[in-house]
Amino acid sequence: MDKKATTRNDDYSKWYNDLVHNADLAEHSDVKGCMVIKPYGYAIWENMRDVLDRMFKDTGHSNAYFPLFIPKSYLSKEASHVEGFAKECAVVTHYRLRATADGKGVEVDPDAKLQEELIVRPTSETIIWNSYRNWIQSYRDLPILINQWANVVRWEMRTRLFLRTAEFLWQEGHTAHATKEEAIAETEQMLRVYADFAENYMAMPVILGRKTPSERFAGADDTLCIEAMMQDGKALQAGTSHFLGQNFAKAFEVKFADKSGKLDYVWATSWGVSTRLMGALVMTHSDDEGLVLPPKLAPIQVVAVPIYKTEDEFKRIEEKFMSLGKALKAQGIRFKFDGDDNKRPGWKFNEYEVKGVPIRLAMGPRDLENGMVELARRDTKEKSSISFDTVLETLEQLLMDIQSNLLERSKQHRANNTFEVDTYEEFKQRIDGGGFFLAHWDGTEATEELVKNETKATIRCIPFTEHPVPGKCMVTGQPSAQRVIFAKAY
Amino acid sequence: MDKKATTRNDDYSKWYNDLVHNADLAEHSDVKGCMVIKPYGYAIWENMRDVLDRMFKDTGHSNAYFPLFIPKSYLSKEASHVEGFAKECAVVTHYRLRATADGKGVEVDPDAKLQEELIVRPTSETIIWNSYRNWIQSYRDLPILINQWANVVRWEMRTRLFLRTAEFLWQEGHTAHATKEEAIAETEQMLRVYADFAENYMAMPVILGRKTPSERFAGADDTLCIEAMMQDGKALQAGTSHFLGQNFAKAFEVKFADKSGKLDYVWATSWGVSTRLMGALVMTHSDDEGLVLPPKLAPIQVVAVPIYKTEDEFKRIEEKFMSLGKALKAQGIRFKFDGDDNKRPGWKFNEYEVKGVPIRLAMGPRDLENGMVELARRDTKEKSSISFDTVLETLEQLLMDIQSNLLERSKQHRANNTFEVDTYEEFKQRIDGGGFFLAHWDGTEATEELVKNETKATIRCIPFTEHPVPGKCMVTGQPSAQRVIFAKAY
Repeated sequence: MDKKATTRNDDYSKWYNDLVHNADLAEHSDVKGCMVIKPYGYAIWENMRDVLDRMFKDTGHSNAYFPLFIPKSYLSKEASHVEGFAKECAVVTHYRLRATADGKGVEVDPDAKLQEELIVRPTSETIIWNSYRNWIQSYRDLPILINQWANVVRWEMRTRLFLRTAEFLWQEGHTAHATKEEAIAETEQMLRVYADFAENYMAMPVILGRKTPSERFAGADDTLCIEAMMQDGKALQAGTSHFLGQNFAKAFEVKFADKSGKLDYVWATSWGVSTRLMGALVMTHSDDEGLVLPPKLAPIQVVAVPIYKTEDEFKRIEEKFMSLGKALKAQGIRFKFDGDDNKRPGWKFNEYEVKGVPIRLAMGPRDLENGMVELARRDTKEKSSISFDTVLETLEQLLMDIQSNLLERSKQHRANNTFEVDTYEEFKQRIDGGGFFLAHWDGTEATEELVKNETKATIRCIPFTEHPVPGKCMVTGQPSAQRVIFAKAY
Repeated sequence: MDKKATTRNDDYSKWYNDLVHNADLAEHSDVKGCMVIKPYGYAIWENMRDVLDRMFKDTGHSNAYFPLFIPKSYLSKEASHVEGFAKECAVVTHYRLRATADGKGVEVDPDAKLQEELIVRPTSETIIWNSYRNWIQSYRDLPILINQWANVVRWEMRTRLFLRTAEFLWQEGHTAHATKEEAIAETEQMLRVYADFAENYMAMPVILGRKTPSERFAGADDTLCIEAMMQDGKALQAGTSHFLGQNFAKAFEVKFADKSGKLDYVWATSWGVSTRLMGALVMTHSDDEGLVLPPKLAPIQVVAVPIYKTEDEFKRIEEKFMSLGKALKAQGIRFKFDGDDNKRPGWKFNEYEVKGVPIRLAMGPRDLENGMVELARRDTKEKSSISFDTVLETLEQLLMDIQSNLLERSKQHRANNTFEVDTYEEFKQRIDGGGFFLAHWDGTEATEELVKNETKATIRCIPFTEHPVPGKCMVTGQPSAQRVIFAKAY
């Protein structure tokens, strides 16, 4: 483990890379752009996946699985979709290798060329709507509410673990509806599911809003999103939910007969979150000592370390912790007793700090005598000595407290770094300092583009608001319906 | 739904295809060789996956995720592995598409050719051992006990849903050990995990044994397997566990220092089961009316259908079933009340029969008056009328009974179709009738090959036995250590 980890102030980007490495979450593979998600990182992702999966099922969705490969021609069927996705992608052109002439290696067999190249899915709208055509005849077949957990590939030259990789894991929901209203309601519902997950499990506050037309998903009529603020003040798009209108139904000729027998195209949505959320989780809570995890997603919520000299001491402490562990497991609390004799307590303390375990317990011979246990919480680094008799209730309460403390802390950070600005001058002066800038925008792509080119900041979203307050565009002075959020983003 | 489904006696192969279609488990996609796993089929696979995943974790394994792509050169590093896997596979040669000159489509950008082609993983030993090299320095880093749930691709021209598809879903365990003995023990342990799963969840009895050298996994020193008998008497390899010796450690230069500091190559295992198990499940239990599912894996264990004329009747029956449903859910029983007013009870009865729901309940106005409910079990097709007051206990017991009945029935079928034969004449006469043939074999590849060429039967495994009884090879008369199992196989 690298003891001299970079701090956030030194170099935020290097701090992130070091942390992902030191906490054993993931690493770059030798295959350009692809990552290896290591067991500890994958355990966090599994917890995220399980929670989201339950939320999807509770809202009536089922999982299914569609092919990894998409025929090249499918991508061209939806005009704007091809613009967005048919560019940087992995193309399968052959289906066989053969031994080289010297017998030492293998080479592509030129006789095994595919008639039509296959694309490794960058997203699955096309292949799924091609299937839906056969599944949908009448309104009785609707809605279709399907989700898929899958790997996807978007060729990337400049990659960062979790945040931007050529291959990543995600879920993609693809639903089909009889009416526009129902599809829009689904789009909004799934955005709220994502926001619920981000706030109540990741302890990461998010802004719900709508993308500007230029930032829409390729093929969508409307893209909703949740945007989170990282500790460096940059924005991270944490999830998107798209109202696809009838675009894919038209591209793939998917019609249904309504109750009166009239044929119409089907309405669609799609929505997704990915392993990018792992990057968001790391950058929202972690500190210079390492990862900080919200208890609800931590693979280990409570770790216990024995401090002993003799074997007898070890056994007596182990016994105490084992009985506690049993009680904790019965409460659904993920507990680990680390009795590894090859490692010293100080090494273990550091290890679990770097790995972000929310609560660490320690017990030595004197604690044992006094019926006490030392408790350290990862988020505040506070330590206390408590009676072993009350430890069970203390831990239950403390895990909830840590979860809500992390959310509050992140909310406070966001509040401290959200600014209203009214002039482009002020905007340009302050944008490099990071944060969310609430400013008026005239609604034109030209202005959006100008700001992007001059400052590298983009409109993250037009936030949902019940009472929009109109004003004047900070750049052009033209009328604006409400403030939008500008920020630099991951 | 196709009412005139093919029977098993008519055409076993067509019966299987019809059933997979009618029960809505999966379908062929337009992408050659790839399947779409539909929600009902995927729900069964999810149940399988969840049970297996828990078993893997209970035996100390963690999940991780490795890249989809494998550099071509990796496949050549292990000499026998390349023979087995570097042939029919999907080859990525380019990473970009561009618009065609007419602007109407996309084509491969010739400038975006990869320096080294990437293979879509057919199995992950090479990419994983390439990572393990950096993870393992000393005995303290061992064992590594990792599993991966993933999609893999092996190009297939002749495909059958679940049984043989170009892309399929599976899990692959990859473990690294300090000693040969520990690796062998792991190989055997995971085979027993698979056997436990097959028998106690799939209700599918399996023979545990060892593959002959010619049937070993490419790169393994020893391949263990579980073999199941389908209803047509053919064998299906349901899972394999490989002792890989030091082959991959040598190919990828993975060494560790033992306690004395001496360097040695690491010992390896790998083991996997796939969506092929879905095919095995279908072919083990189903009948001419459709799917039959063991309760432990059924997405719906109990379905309730109301029979009514008036809305008042519906409401009273619904109320009864809803309160039952609540009680069942509390017991962990998966229950569905089908109150769809657009479909008649007869249609629903047929639907749930085809989909293999273990228990169907029905209640009409007279049942309601008498406090009774009609119960139909899918496995035996027996119907009975029972008091609503005792239905909860009845259902709990009945689900267990159905689970064990299915296992017993399959065991009986296997026993009825397992034969000892002592002469090759008899073997040749009877092999086309299907079944497992226990016969002596001289241990040579020549004999194995001869039998395969003349009869299409293969040695499924050398079954584990505590008391091997020697004899004489049915073909050559040469000495044989024990009987092996010959069968035609999927």
